Amino acid sequence: EKFAGTHLLVDMWGAKNLDDPERIDQTLREAALTAGATILHSHFHHFTPNGGVSGVVVLAESHISIHTWPERNFAAVDIFMCGACDPHMAIPVMQRLFQAKRLDVSEERRGRVTA
Amino acid sequence: EKFAGTHLLVDMWGAKNLDDPERIDQTLREAALTAGATILHSHFHHFTPNGGVSGVVVLAESHISIHTWPERNFAAVDIFMCGACDPHMAIPVMQRLFQAKRLDVSEERRGRVTA
Repeated sequence: EKFAGTHLLVDMWGAKNLDDPERIDQTLREAALTAGATILHSHFHHFTPNGGVSGVVVLAESHISIHTWPERNFAAVDIFMCGACDPHMAIPVMQRLFQAKRLDVSEERRGRVTA
Repeated sequence: EKFAGTHLLVDMWGAKNLDDPERIDQTLREAALTAGATILHSHFHHFTPNGGVSGVVVLAESHISIHTWPERNFAAVDIFMCGACDPHMAIPVMQRLFQAKRLDVSEERRGRVTA
């Protein structure tokens, strides 16, 4: 099977440190590098009054995004990587910051060619 | 069922206009507004030599991202929206530019609470 890239959707429950855009930016960048990706750009937004963070790291190999709901201890992450990167390697780096009690991971192969 | 938002993964095949970051930026912004979302930030990158585009529109209600492979007439889009937005409404706006011959759409409900 040929495909363009692997897209992980990660729902994090019981997570901490969801209201700090600087630490989240730093952690997602470190996660990208650990997975073997090249960072092109990142942007994070801090919402008031709930403290939620939305942000994205644009990669040469696609992207990582996050949206957090601190009041629910919930974060929705997606990690899409093409080429020789391993997006699964990004998850333990994020877990060092977020310490989620439960992770729901779904994996999609994008651009599947079933020839 | 309660959930935080709807995440559409859209694989576009047989698509056109995949190598023009300005038009793609403009189209994704229009798609976001049509779906009822509020734009916070957008960033698009143009790759050489293949002309591919990677980019994201960060929304108050999550994000839209795109990664294109003009040499395969393929684009991988994701549309994640919370609140009262309807991410499905973004797709026809994109189709006006990309005119994809086939769309593979998968829908994930992020942050599902099965209480």
